[in-house]
Amino acid sequence: MRLRFYVLILMVSILAGTKSGVADEGMWTFDNPPVKQLQEKYNFTPAAQWLDHIRLSSVRFNDGGSGSFVSPNGLVITNHHVAFGQLQKVSTAEKDYVKDGFSAKTQADELKSPDLELNVLVSMENVTARVQGAVKPGMTEKQALDARKGEQAKIQKESLDKTGLRSDVVSFYQGGEYWLYRYKKYTDVRIVFAPEQQTAFFGGDPDNFTFPRYDLDFAILRVYENGQPIQSKEYLKWNTKGAADGDLVFVSGHPGSTERGLTVAQLMLDRDLIYPTRIARYKHQLQALRAYAGRWQEQARQAADEIFGLENTVKAFTGEYNGMDKSLFDKKTKEESDLRAKVSANAEWRRQYADAWDAIAGATKKQAELFKPQQFRSISTASNLASLARQIVVYVAEIKKPDAQRLNGYHDSQLEELKFYLFSPAPIYPEFEEAMLAFSLQDSADQLGPNDPWVKAVLNGKTPAQLASEVIRGTKLTDTAVRKSLVEGGEAAVNASTDPLVVLARKVDPFFREIRKQYEDTVESVMTSASEKIAKARFAIYGKSVYPDATFTLRLAYGTVKGYPMNGTKAPPKTTFYGLYDRSTSFDNKAPFNLMPRFVERRDKIDLSTPLNFVNTADIIGGNSGSPVINRNGEFVGIIFDGNIESLTGNFVYLEESNRAVAVHSAAIIEALRKVYDAPALANELEGK
Amino acid sequence: MRLRFYVLILMVSILAGTKSGVADEGMWTFDNPPVKQLQEKYNFTPAAQWLDHIRLSSVRFNDGGSGSFVSPNGLVITNHHVAFGQLQKVSTAEKDYVKDGFSAKTQADELKSPDLELNVLVSMENVTARVQGAVKPGMTEKQALDARKGEQAKIQKESLDKTGLRSDVVSFYQGGEYWLYRYKKYTDVRIVFAPEQQTAFFGGDPDNFTFPRYDLDFAILRVYENGQPIQSKEYLKWNTKGAADGDLVFVSGHPGSTERGLTVAQLMLDRDLIYPTRIARYKHQLQALRAYAGRWQEQARQAADEIFGLENTVKAFTGEYNGMDKSLFDKKTKEESDLRAKVSANAEWRRQYADAWDAIAGATKKQAELFKPQQFRSISTASNLASLARQIVVYVAEIKKPDAQRLNGYHDSQLEELKFYLFSPAPIYPEFEEAMLAFSLQDSADQLGPNDPWVKAVLNGKTPAQLASEVIRGTKLTDTAVRKSLVEGGEAAVNASTDPLVVLARKVDPFFREIRKQYEDTVESVMTSASEKIAKARFAIYGKSVYPDATFTLRLAYGTVKGYPMNGTKAPPKTTFYGLYDRSTSFDNKAPFNLMPRFVERRDKIDLSTPLNFVNTADIIGGNSGSPVINRNGEFVGIIFDGNIESLTGNFVYLEESNRAVAVHSAAIIEALRKVYDAPALANELEGK
Repeated sequence: MRLRFYVLILMVSILAGTKSGVADEGMWTFDNPPVKQLQEKYNFTPAAQWLDHIRLSSVRFNDGGSGSFVSPNGLVITNHHVAFGQLQKVSTAEKDYVKDGFSAKTQADELKSPDLELNVLVSMENVTARVQGAVKPGMTEKQALDARKGEQAKIQKESLDKTGLRSDVVSFYQGGEYWLYRYKKYTDVRIVFAPEQQTAFFGGDPDNFTFPRYDLDFAILRVYENGQPIQSKEYLKWNTKGAADGDLVFVSGHPGSTERGLTVAQLMLDRDLIYPTRIARYKHQLQALRAYAGRWQEQARQAADEIFGLENTVKAFTGEYNGMDKSLFDKKTKEESDLRAKVSANAEWRRQYADAWDAIAGATKKQAELFKPQQFRSISTASNLASLARQIVVYVAEIKKPDAQRLNGYHDSQLEELKFYLFSPAPIYPEFEEAMLAFSLQDSADQLGPNDPWVKAVLNGKTPAQLASEVIRGTKLTDTAVRKSLVEGGEAAVNASTDPLVVLARKVDPFFREIRKQYEDTVESVMTSASEKIAKARFAIYGKSVYPDATFTLRLAYGTVKGYPMNGTKAPPKTTFYGLYDRSTSFDNKAPFNLMPRFVERRDKIDLSTPLNFVNTADIIGGNSGSPVINRNGEFVGIIFDGNIESLTGNFVYLEESNRAVAVHSAAIIEALRKVYDAPALANELEGK
Repeated sequence: MRLRFYVLILMVSILAGTKSGVADEGMWTFDNPPVKQLQEKYNFTPAAQWLDHIRLSSVRFNDGGSGSFVSPNGLVITNHHVAFGQLQKVSTAEKDYVKDGFSAKTQADELKSPDLELNVLVSMENVTARVQGAVKPGMTEKQALDARKGEQAKIQKESLDKTGLRSDVVSFYQGGEYWLYRYKKYTDVRIVFAPEQQTAFFGGDPDNFTFPRYDLDFAILRVYENGQPIQSKEYLKWNTKGAADGDLVFVSGHPGSTERGLTVAQLMLDRDLIYPTRIARYKHQLQALRAYAGRWQEQARQAADEIFGLENTVKAFTGEYNGMDKSLFDKKTKEESDLRAKVSANAEWRRQYADAWDAIAGATKKQAELFKPQQFRSISTASNLASLARQIVVYVAEIKKPDAQRLNGYHDSQLEELKFYLFSPAPIYPEFEEAMLAFSLQDSADQLGPNDPWVKAVLNGKTPAQLASEVIRGTKLTDTAVRKSLVEGGEAAVNASTDPLVVLARKVDPFFREIRKQYEDTVESVMTSASEKIAKARFAIYGKSVYPDATFTLRLAYGTVKGYPMNGTKAPPKTTFYGLYDRSTSFDNKAPFNLMPRFVERRDKIDLSTPLNFVNTADIIGGNSGSPVINRNGEFVGIIFDGNIESLTGNFVYLEESNRAVAVHSAAIIEALRKVYDAPALANELEGK
């Protein structure tokens, strides 16, 4: 997939557990590792110290990926495509580090990322009793929802005040558990090395989400504090030998979201409305991006990261959508029937939980009604600048409220991250923003129709292109200082602003709040309550032998390096540099199968039999991009960068037969650094030489 | 697939035409090449001289494949897997040319094939009027069938007597046309070069019928007459540059059989009865073969060709079976409805043809009843020796009848080929024959049940293993002279024989003749008559803008060298030697992905970017194995050896999007002969140097 977790349009995330079989299934929280499975299948017992070591070596990239410490001096490895956004932000029309790659000769040359936040999970505390206990008998579902949210905000604030650590209350098992996750946060992150994008993403969109692959999809960063590289006590020792066919491996990373615990009614909504609507939308947006990129070379550079991300999303969503076939529904329907039968067979469970599925089915009907307005009554889904404007308008209104009553993202404990983003010095390209805003306004008008009140109010007789041109050419929000003064001036300053983009962002605010309220009242509150019941039923029946759906929190997956049946034959457990040259020559070196010149020049220096990419059965999904692949000894043997095409149904179900995680082999990285990129010092640092 | 046409259990072959679209579809007879399509799509007009050159350079391998002349001194190239059977027949326990390959140092070293017959199509004559005219008004369908068959035998005999050439009357378009094909026949064929089977079949059964591939699936033979290499005036000039992405190419070869013209009722019988029964049967036979091969090394060698062929068949049939899905039936049902509607719209057509589809549907019911007895009341489907015995018993009975009344295969004009086979000096392994006869008796008993009259009569209280042991250990038919004396002694000698295998073969003969009669009376006669009507309806509506179903006669296909969408990404138009090393290293050089040692040793001598295999859109099927791929100039640029997994539905329908013919590139053959096999003289002869 390119397993980065592209947060595009937020979905209602209903968290859920799934019964685990004997397969290498599951994205396990570190408080509940799959000890039994590992002992029985692999004769391996993860010691507490081993688990701590893995956890503290793992890094979350807050813009949607994973990584790990791989040296005692703050080196972090992730995927090139996770670092892509930052590489683009430090590039200019004159110097394109995405296209040409980057290699710091000395530490002084390392390039500072403008707005990248890394997190390391330093503690986990079960706060289920506090959050669920905030709900008192006799409350309506809406009151219960507010009570839970309020309590979460309170816990976060208390923790931040007490520890100074980023503190997130996260929900697992469809609200069956709530945990306080505390993160050590790093914001001074510098780019040490990145190959050319073509080398990292060899095979382009066609090869994306497939295997065999031949991609050097890695980038190396260094974490600083107080102007100095940090001393990273916990880091994964590099093992250049890597993992071989049949080896047990682990993946520690941050899968973004899965929907394995959805009810059948929710899956039907996915299939019948949500997926088709979104795929069509993304395809339209991709057309607009490509048209923009076609204007000239510099515009192509500006749009590169977004095109990449959206192509990725379209391919992933299409695969997931195609996976929602009869066999999936048969399986899910059977699972649900079995669970409901078990609930019904016990009088107490029946009384407490049995109505949950029908409640959710009822709420999906309302959700379906609200879906299109939620999706399309928005100015901020394509233009970054419009998104900043919208967040400033929401911020000044939310900040006046008591912490517990604010929208998520605007709690006291979250303001530092929010401002880090709002005041980012990363470049903004007005021509790009205008094109994207014009596209999204046009798409909204097409989807909602000319008589939609939102469309009428927003366009007010203008064409989308006219309006976009007016507000983007007129706005001063490209200037960080202007954004800062509005945020600091609060509601008064925002309300007084005549900046045309701020005016537009104010105009759509009542629509947003109205639909948000309807959604909370009729969908979210019902689903949260019902989902918690299902989660409790599952715990009652299965205990904690289950893992929760992915939530962009740290998870441990495990599996075996192993080929699989593919298109009538077998996919191998790994590929080699031979294959890179084969695939390129097979397409006469045409894009996206062209080799960078240095790979042509250095061919005879490379040991072509060096493993390049490899696959394993670990259960991963978008967000796992950049996750380390780790052996029994806790050593780094590779880096996840994709799932195969067969894994796309992983959003709903894990199939060990064909589901594979795709990784860059540790040996390939060293071979490339030494033989192709003339970076022996970096290779030595990684290898601890 | 390994496109060799494995003639296993003969199917009723109902020949039929299909409307051709603009796609690169069709297996065209040389009297009716697709001139319009080639002109419109490729701006190419095949001149008569060009067509004659291609035709006379093309060779049919009578044991199920194709080939071509590639030098003026009688060199013929085909696939290794077409030559496999002959390589096995000239091998011994001490010298295994299948495993080790063979390279003749001088002409004197070339190895004579024991029973290989090659055919070159030297003339074609339309005899439709004579054959169809043999049917007189008032004849029953059975009388009409006999009349057609009698006339065909007569034409063949006349032609053989007149010209001395092999003369076959062949039927096209479901009996819409009959042609007299005359062949120049060669029976002194010597093996010049073959790589090791592992090199020819790298990737084994898993990679069979798939692409990308890395196989050197070729063998080179030389044709002799009167102890001297023939002067082959017509041969394809070798072009080592080969064909590039996008090039127009032609394939001239002998596709074995297709069923594109079957009616929907016939396809349903395929889907519901014929395919599942056969696939199950072949799997059982494969188990028996593998058990035999597991006894010891020499037994594995003896069974190799049969295992190879049967694995190939199981994979092909499974692919075809899986392709008989709803979309196929929707398409076929629509085509049939359209054709029937056109017939109904014309009063004369309606009167003549409209009842044909219902007649066929009725006959398929009777066919379904007869199918299992036809399949399983047989002793000769697994044991070659039992098959020889059966043919001798049938022969002596048929030969007494007037030529026109004999079973097909026993006409005067066919006796030379029959005797070439019956008296072949190729080795027979009694241990193998015993195991195979025991298997087939057991399988028949399992399928038909213990109370089936055939089972009772044949086993007569013995177990299949006992009976097989008795008759194989007791028979003298392994001796060519014994077979010859029985054939020459005629019915008297055969009836007097106490050879236990002959006794058994006599015992099953009445069963065979009874079911054969029922089949002719109730299925074949009805279908032949009805199919001829449908063919005439098609001619009336579409003219001759259609091609006939494949019948192991020479056909011209055409297409473009071109990649295709595959498993989420793109398959390239070609592969290179890099890929061979990648795939081998990817599987740690484990079988069936192991390299022969010479490829490891010579690696640095090979130009790894040399094209190895390539794909094109030409419409081919089993039997096309070994067909030359030819460029506009009539030069040899490669050799077909397989179809991709997506092409397996080609039995029923051609899909240009994904259907690909897989070929060995001409450059790969030269590179291997010069750099790996130290055969520069042969390479020079091929390249005309």
